[in-house]
Amino acid sequence: MALKASVSVHLHGEFEVAGGTLPNAFTAYQVYGDPTNPCILVPTCYGARLSLSSEAHLVGEHKVLDPRKYFVVIFATFGNGESSSPSNTAAPFDGPRFPYCSYEDNVRAQKAVVDALGVKKVHCVIGYSMGGQQAYYWALMYPYLVERVIAICSAARTSIHNRCIIEGPKYAMIASKDFHDGEYKSTPRHGIRAFGRSLFAWAYDPSFYREHLYTMNGAYLTAESFFVEQSESYWLQFWDANDLLALLETWQRGDVSQVFHRGDLEETLGSIHAKVLLMPSKTDPLFKVEESQMEVSLLPRGELQVIDSLWGHFAGSSVHSPDIEFISRRIDTFLS
Amino acid sequence: MALKASVSVHLHGEFEVAGGTLPNAFTAYQVYGDPTNPCILVPTCYGARLSLSSEAHLVGEHKVLDPRKYFVVIFATFGNGESSSPSNTAAPFDGPRFPYCSYEDNVRAQKAVVDALGVKKVHCVIGYSMGGQQAYYWALMYPYLVERVIAICSAARTSIHNRCIIEGPKYAMIASKDFHDGEYKSTPRHGIRAFGRSLFAWAYDPSFYREHLYTMNGAYLTAESFFVEQSESYWLQFWDANDLLALLETWQRGDVSQVFHRGDLEETLGSIHAKVLLMPSKTDPLFKVEESQMEVSLLPRGELQVIDSLWGHFAGSSVHSPDIEFISRRIDTFLS
Repeated sequence: MALKASVSVHLHGEFEVAGGTLPNAFTAYQVYGDPTNPCILVPTCYGARLSLSSEAHLVGEHKVLDPRKYFVVIFATFGNGESSSPSNTAAPFDGPRFPYCSYEDNVRAQKAVVDALGVKKVHCVIGYSMGGQQAYYWALMYPYLVERVIAICSAARTSIHNRCIIEGPKYAMIASKDFHDGEYKSTPRHGIRAFGRSLFAWAYDPSFYREHLYTMNGAYLTAESFFVEQSESYWLQFWDANDLLALLETWQRGDVSQVFHRGDLEETLGSIHAKVLLMPSKTDPLFKVEESQMEVSLLPRGELQVIDSLWGHFAGSSVHSPDIEFISRRIDTFLS
Repeated sequence: MALKASVSVHLHGEFEVAGGTLPNAFTAYQVYGDPTNPCILVPTCYGARLSLSSEAHLVGEHKVLDPRKYFVVIFATFGNGESSSPSNTAAPFDGPRFPYCSYEDNVRAQKAVVDALGVKKVHCVIGYSMGGQQAYYWALMYPYLVERVIAICSAARTSIHNRCIIEGPKYAMIASKDFHDGEYKSTPRHGIRAFGRSLFAWAYDPSFYREHLYTMNGAYLTAESFFVEQSESYWLQFWDANDLLALLETWQRGDVSQVFHRGDLEETLGSIHAKVLLMPSKTDPLFKVEESQMEVSLLPRGELQVIDSLWGHFAGSSVHSPDIEFISRRIDTFLS
């Protein structure tokens, strides 16, 4: 069965977010399966689009998140261009005036959707990268609701180094000659390219390049052609520059320990009652395996399964079949 | 004794480089000690300036490169603003029209200085980062002259990943709103900032931030203030944007195996007769310890001493005293 759920939209009306108040906020989502089945929530990662089936590698018949077995709800993160974003919000909160939305705002909005769908128990929240960070927020903010959490290539808080890394692509966009402080009239191609090159260097570890995996089975002759194409084409084709920055800020400021514990991560993780499965990638330069090891030592019911992959941060995404298989098997065991 | 050698300039006249012909090329250098002492050559790293004593932590009385014991010659790399560079070359080769200079060009130019100084034997070529890459070129291009090579936080060729990394800061500068294709009339501050943030994220490993070493003993309160200041202030104060890009290209295209062996690194390293000491930093994100391990396995007379440091790429520079001490001791043993 091909994955072809339509995108639904939940209207929040006036909705407070960390950076202000949105008069007409909305959350885009997709549902799969029967609402009487155990519920699985999937918040999306950076760059994900529901309309592009970004999570299709995990959801579908004969896949680990089988709609015949689970009721799966996928949420678009604020700023992704489908939920409320700079690009789809009316003045005076359009473009660069769009207020900062935290992970907390996202999860509060997603909770409203879950309530509207009549869900009383969440079997698991599963997320990759920014999605995994939201899964952590779910466990903390709605402990009575959430039984399990799976965070893939992710972290409870964006590491200090990761916060610094993000300064590169962010400022590259802002400083570019066609971004015009976010008031561009056509796609700021220079800005998006500078952003993309600066960010994409962090997707893979040197070992990925050393082993020539960038050829993608012959699709690319050189690392440079792979790098340039992969770092810009998707953003140029599908993304708005202000959206890219809005979502980047949510990522940069992610820290689940700020919700209730004033930055005390030990106390925060110690308070999570849900079962938690962490699956870092051995070669992820952004969400390091050491962070997940530290987190699992603080979680009362944590489990660590390292993805032994050369595919860096993308080991947790849809690009490499053996990694998808490993992740699927671990999810399956963890959910039953 | 404070390190206060004046900067000398060797005029090459018309000088062919990889990207064209410079009508009046010159190499800036400094000498320390008596020319009858064993000769040590020190090509500089990215960002180094002779006038700012960038190598002062290794050269001086009671330091490992003691001028009473050695005849030390430090060379400014083309593009650093002291040797021929976009910023100090007359039209028609000024600014963005400055031709690409390879490491081979640099070392050929340095050899002319060495000849002019009457040096007949080079006891050791020592370099950090880009300086270490040039040291490799010395060993290959002038095997009869060079007895020893020390490469600190460096590599015989810029790794594929490193080449991709450089695309970020390079394009961030080029795409910036004040770079104007290199024809700027005043310092392109936005461009330099975007360049700096994109590059500086690669200086340190996450462990450096995790252990809060960015406070620099209390000088910085937050990682962000450290990151912003350290990534831009030096470049903004001392550097020309076209110089930064020229030097970046030399780094990006560095590959000693292209000199004689059409890219065959195994054959290239196998042909190096000089004794070689490699000192990678355990936490260097740019020149990975794995690369040095691979290289030493291919060198007939190679030795590996890993700097066990949390100071990333800068473990090989002047910022962290314990690393300088370790490096100095290893250099001392290797030279005697």
